[in-house]
Amino acid sequence: MADTDTCAYGFGVDLRLPYDQAISAVTDALKAEGFGVLTNIDMQRTLHEKIGVEIEPYAILGACNPPMAHSALTAEREIGLLLPCNVVVRATDYGSRVDFADPEAMMSIVGNDAVADVAVQARERLVRVADALAARESAS
Amino acid sequence: MADTDTCAYGFGVDLRLPYDQAISAVTDALKAEGFGVLTNIDMQRTLHEKIGVEIEPYAILGACNPPMAHSALTAEREIGLLLPCNVVVRATDYGSRVDFADPEAMMSIVGNDAVADVAVQARERLVRVADALAARESAS
Repeated sequence: MADTDTCAYGFGVDLRLPYDQAISAVTDALKAEGFGVLTNIDMQRTLHEKIGVEIEPYAILGACNPPMAHSALTAEREIGLLLPCNVVVRATDYGSRVDFADPEAMMSIVGNDAVADVAVQARERLVRVADALAARESAS
Repeated sequence: MADTDTCAYGFGVDLRLPYDQAISAVTDALKAEGFGVLTNIDMQRTLHEKIGVEIEPYAILGACNPPMAHSALTAEREIGLLLPCNVVVRATDYGSRVDFADPEAMMSIVGNDAVADVAVQARERLVRVADALAARESAS
């Protein structure tokens, strides 16, 4: 299925793309909405190296839209505690799964209207990223 | 003041240490509680390079305790959306400020008891990290 679906703190899409290609595709789709990928944590490697546990290929990408990050920081200096926007890419039997942290859910614990405004805008962009990936999937 | 204090989604401590030394001190204190620093986002440099905006030295560190991360992932596969634990270090007139994202506040939006248990344990460790920094400050 290529439709996006949601959980309490995120939304995402199942892709037929294999894991490595999914990371490239989501990175490109994020870029089109003004998000750079600042960090990439390879959880499979981290857990293997640190505690000898094996999991599927699993990446936590840290996506940042600099003007939005600056707006949020200007509204609340500690907001870096909730930045960047996490995007999880993991291998599945189907291909891969891409999940986006929902900025509105994340920022709901802050209680700052200016931050909430930025969160609404960030969510709109990330939904477009998920939709673009789903559309690409449907077209392939 | 060296006492820890809290906001809705984090807690932290003011340090007389300058910014660079504060990053080293918090990295060491995290290590003593089993947290490695997997990522370090230099927000000052990022905002300067990407949009020409100037802010104070400001780092977002991504701290991960691998056994805890694995427990959380086992309980809920999408939990990477809320990992790693963010620690913000920034320069202040006093010296520096270190803030820790509160795992219990972060995980409150998940609604999974097993994840909540991990969050309680993670919070206890991060409070000890903040206390250790405060104690070091008082002793210096």
